Amino acid sequence: MRRFFPTKTLNNCHSSSQETHQEYEDIIVVDQPMQISLNNLAPSDQAIVSFKTRGEIEVYSSTNQLITSLNPVPVREIPEITLLARTFSDRILDRCLQITFQDDACCQLSQVLIKLTCVRICLDVDADRDGVIEEDHPHKGDWQWGINGHGAVLLVNNDRGLNYSDEQQKQEDQSIQRLLALKDLSFMSVRRVGLKKLPAECQLCLSVDQDIAKRIRIYDQLEQRGDQLIGSGKATAQLKDTDRDIILAIEGLSYPDFDFDGMVEITLSLVKQGEILYSDRVIFRVAPWIMTPNTLAPITVFVSRLSNGKNEQFIDELRKVVGKANAQIDPVPFEFHQDDPWMRDEIEIGYTQAPGHFIHVILDSPRDRGLDHFAQRQLIGTDFGYVVRKSRYCATKLDSFGNLEVSPPVTVNGINYPFGRLIFGGTRPEIIHQPRRMLKVVRDFLYAQKIQAPLEIFSDWLSVGHIDEFMTFVPASTSKGFKLLLASTDKSYELLKQLRDQGQAQILLRQGKQLNDQPADISVADVLNNQELTSQNQRFQEYINWNREVLKQELGLDEEDIIDIPALFQDDGDGRAETFFPNMVNLIVLNQHLAIPKPFGPKIKDQCQFEAYVKRVLEPLGKECHFIDDWEPYFRGGGEIHCGTNTRRQPFTQKWWEIEPNFL
Amino acid sequence: MRRFFPTKTLNNCHSSSQETHQEYEDIIVVDQPMQISLNNLAPSDQAIVSFKTRGEIEVYSSTNQLITSLNPVPVREIPEITLLARTFSDRILDRCLQITFQDDACCQLSQVLIKLTCVRICLDVDADRDGVIEEDHPHKGDWQWGINGHGAVLLVNNDRGLNYSDEQQKQEDQSIQRLLALKDLSFMSVRRVGLKKLPAECQLCLSVDQDIAKRIRIYDQLEQRGDQLIGSGKATAQLKDTDRDIILAIEGLSYPDFDFDGMVEITLSLVKQGEILYSDRVIFRVAPWIMTPNTLAPITVFVSRLSNGKNEQFIDELRKVVGKANAQIDPVPFEFHQDDPWMRDEIEIGYTQAPGHFIHVILDSPRDRGLDHFAQRQLIGTDFGYVVRKSRYCATKLDSFGNLEVSPPVTVNGINYPFGRLIFGGTRPEIIHQPRRMLKVVRDFLYAQKIQAPLEIFSDWLSVGHIDEFMTFVPASTSKGFKLLLASTDKSYELLKQLRDQGQAQILLRQGKQLNDQPADISVADVLNNQELTSQNQRFQEYINWNREVLKQELGLDEEDIIDIPALFQDDGDGRAETFFPNMVNLIVLNQHLAIPKPFGPKIKDQCQFEAYVKRVLEPLGKECHFIDDWEPYFRGGGEIHCGTNTRRQPFTQKWWEIEPNFL
Repeated sequence: MRRFFPTKTLNNCHSSSQETHQEYEDIIVVDQPMQISLNNLAPSDQAIVSFKTRGEIEVYSSTNQLITSLNPVPVREIPEITLLARTFSDRILDRCLQITFQDDACCQLSQVLIKLTCVRICLDVDADRDGVIEEDHPHKGDWQWGINGHGAVLLVNNDRGLNYSDEQQKQEDQSIQRLLALKDLSFMSVRRVGLKKLPAECQLCLSVDQDIAKRIRIYDQLEQRGDQLIGSGKATAQLKDTDRDIILAIEGLSYPDFDFDGMVEITLSLVKQGEILYSDRVIFRVAPWIMTPNTLAPITVFVSRLSNGKNEQFIDELRKVVGKANAQIDPVPFEFHQDDPWMRDEIEIGYTQAPGHFIHVILDSPRDRGLDHFAQRQLIGTDFGYVVRKSRYCATKLDSFGNLEVSPPVTVNGINYPFGRLIFGGTRPEIIHQPRRMLKVVRDFLYAQKIQAPLEIFSDWLSVGHIDEFMTFVPASTSKGFKLLLASTDKSYELLKQLRDQGQAQILLRQGKQLNDQPADISVADVLNNQELTSQNQRFQEYINWNREVLKQELGLDEEDIIDIPALFQDDGDGRAETFFPNMVNLIVLNQHLAIPKPFGPKIKDQCQFEAYVKRVLEPLGKECHFIDDWEPYFRGGGEIHCGTNTRRQPFTQKWWEIEPNFL
Repeated sequence: MRRFFPTKTLNNCHSSSQETHQEYEDIIVVDQPMQISLNNLAPSDQAIVSFKTRGEIEVYSSTNQLITSLNPVPVREIPEITLLARTFSDRILDRCLQITFQDDACCQLSQVLIKLTCVRICLDVDADRDGVIEEDHPHKGDWQWGINGHGAVLLVNNDRGLNYSDEQQKQEDQSIQRLLALKDLSFMSVRRVGLKKLPAECQLCLSVDQDIAKRIRIYDQLEQRGDQLIGSGKATAQLKDTDRDIILAIEGLSYPDFDFDGMVEITLSLVKQGEILYSDRVIFRVAPWIMTPNTLAPITVFVSRLSNGKNEQFIDELRKVVGKANAQIDPVPFEFHQDDPWMRDEIEIGYTQAPGHFIHVILDSPRDRGLDHFAQRQLIGTDFGYVVRKSRYCATKLDSFGNLEVSPPVTVNGINYPFGRLIFGGTRPEIIHQPRRMLKVVRDFLYAQKIQAPLEIFSDWLSVGHIDEFMTFVPASTSKGFKLLLASTDKSYELLKQLRDQGQAQILLRQGKQLNDQPADISVADVLNNQELTSQNQRFQEYINWNREVLKQELGLDEEDIIDIPALFQDDGDGRAETFFPNMVNLIVLNQHLAIPKPFGPKIKDQCQFEAYVKRVLEPLGKECHFIDDWEPYFRGGGEIHCGTNTRRQPFTQKWWEIEPNFL
């Protein structure tokens, strides 16, 4: 509600009698009531008042009664009136309220003429999330989760962070490339104000908070050169005069983070001489970055093609599995990885979406090794977005994204996580000397996305420190929809002891393989008799068990949801674990096909007993196990298939804004 | 299924023995089987064959059995094999099939080496209509109506038909205006082929039919200057080599019409030396132009602001009704109408939509009078689309869009028309001398939109020839959702006779008004006693009755769905009807508010008896009747409020592609 203050009289003429005539000019906003205190205008509180209007304007009494009668009323009975106009003026001062004051004898005492121009202030967005801007959605200034929720969505623009050269930028400006790079912008509409030129001293201003001005850019269709209206710290802009709707394009620059909840409020104000007469406002939520669990179908598997054909055979084998899964394999050339084989660690491929928009988005880890160029390769196209978190602190191995996973959708104690939960590895300082933890900038980013409520577990006991060295998720047609696979040293010892008990103590693990230019083969007996190795593995098993309990609790799992996968670790000399034979749990899931590191376990009749065990537990779930030799290109470098690949997956079919997260 | 023809041998060397070695190179397409006839390759039908593969390729027997065994088989048992590859090559000739023929004695007779490069040919669209392009939607080459249907949608670009000046065009190119003008394009994706450079002599070609090449434009993101890839008659284009997905933007130029069913098929082909090796194809349907019935909420009412204040009072009165209906009124300045008051007749405001896209679209009639400039005014903005139909034949009054209406949604004999039915007026040559009919170009356009199954009725009996002179639809909370209002001369006579019977024969119609500089008032008695007028009105009533029956039948209406509105006509001297007093049925509907021409009927106690009757029949339906004096600016020119206004309305909430039209 705005008040009319008769501060400035345009005309104030006394006629020959005592009668005065006052004229005012003001602005009224469509559908916004304006209060007028008659006490301030009346020549005396004994006066009798009558009204006359011109143009589309209604007068209401203090009790909200429409005043239609022209019969004079005592001012004391109607100390205040409210004006309401519903249609914008197409001409200046096309409305008028004439207030006449009389005395008891019907002699006119004074007359006040209030001339009004009615302006519409309306900023619109796609609040109902169908991709189309509505007309003045009742909840456009509010944001609610859920299928029946409302509130507009903003994408972080997909190629920010990529530094074009000036030449590229110039070319881009001249081409339709620019259009396509901008095709995932959101739009707003400033509805036609009414007048082409606002009354003198009036402006239409768009504004955001100073902090938000660094996190978005707004473009005005009327700006000839595509200059931004708001952004780069510029928080307020005056809109040009026009007699039609103005379309504004808006792009997000920042994902939600510890200092940004993702909510972007934009205000359209009618300003007169610095005073805000009326404001309309809309709210966007910046779409979060979402990770895709192993239960979603793969589209593309990325792998570094190492020089000298080092992993050529591996790629060939993996390609066959990828083909069976109806996905594509995309071997990345040397220039983008510089022989860095750890495709998993440099990036995580998630996605972001808004109504009618979808893009895969690469989260670039603070680990900047050879594959740091890979994101650049993908980003040149329009089908990948990009986000990176850098820190002034040094990254550790725990900042690699082999240390970041996402569970399939889970329900935990009645709380539904329809997009699963992010899981990353950290430390337990009471156990670990010189503990490491994922950098705060990365953790903050993960928590700020909200939709996949993160969970920190314990991976610092591993030399490489990645959770994918002891856990993964495999889809299963159980009520939960998946099984958690955990590396198990106990399970290895159990299998090895069975072999010894069957008189097979002399068969070899790691047969025919080399480590440090030495034959790597070792007998079942030698493994079992190695007390130091046994006690190390007991210790590592305890760490896995600790994680097992945390995962059971935080993902709502039972023992039957977990499958133990044989693994052995050994101390790296620094108290941390490194794998003893290729670590099968570090597999990749491609629909029902699993590409599993070939463990080179003890063989009976040419059948590896570790492989046999894994098939025995996974094939009943409908899985096809493909064991691939990754010894040379990956295992010897401290990782396996999962570490050496990255998978772009289909998104969730459910839209993130349609859920009602009760965990927020 | 493609066949391998060993037409060209790369290597054909005879060794010292009879043994031959042949090498071929070919292309195979991802997921597309390739047949190889062994009979053609075998040195004899007695030979025994064995296979060896390199790279991701599978060999199937004629009976679709995967050939995994390396054991040799007699050729006569396996005369044909099929190859299948599922992953694209990232290197030329990375697959190989080696076929070895032996004799019974296991002596090698010959060997054939087929080296293959596997290429992906995949063109994608938004076939599931969520605004996002999917990966290889199974029904992308097909189009089905319905909420569970599929098939992509293409909008006709919104500002085609508007002729920018060169200077404007230039400015536009440099500005974000271009982006916004193009924001309603649809997109396609050519999926990554695999190789950056295709094998020699191979090309990737996009093509459409020659006719379609005039109806769409396709832009390639890789074209630096935004040149069109396909369009302006260019039906085929070679795509540039790239190692990533290519986004193509497509815009429609033509709405469906008599010679265009709106279906746009686009083919992506792998071509080698002019031969098409494989094609993928997608289908779009061009979105139809849709009209909005009176049951949809108004947004903006357009009216010409005539010079010399001729309709100033009228606009003021109408503005109040528009305000009550929460809509806006937009008086159009002189430069856009040149004092042409007939806003209804020059244009019809409909809309078009695609998933995530919506634009109001002006259909410009072949009537090109002063208001022809109006469309231009609206089109400068991005929120109006435009379509016009011109003919080499002269337009008649029947081509004005006062002669085009749309019913609310109806069900007729079990057939559901969820978007209503278009209705336009035509002639009955057996009755009418020098008959007129709406131009074929306009009728063809209307029928071709399909979604609102048009219906032609009889309006040529009217001098102006518009159906809005005798019919309109008013929303009502009945099971049908509306009432049909029909002008009724019988009803007028009935009311006038009642007045005479009540002794009121001398009260006046058209009191205080002028026609041809003469007082227009005429008594009830004089009207009733005018035999000629009576017989004319009987004739005109028969024409209305004829239409009444057609409308009842074609819209599935009962008598209770129809309300008679008093009207009188008189012969224009040429046998056609012109109104005798302001024609109330020519009203505009603004939610529950009706802006009705003030009929200047006979008054009793200051109450017009025609108005009283209309209120009596419409107020029980929840309608508020606002009678507005349109005598001078409109009635005297041969029209009324409906003729003098145009209303932009909210679209249907249902999407047109979600219906399953059983009337098509």
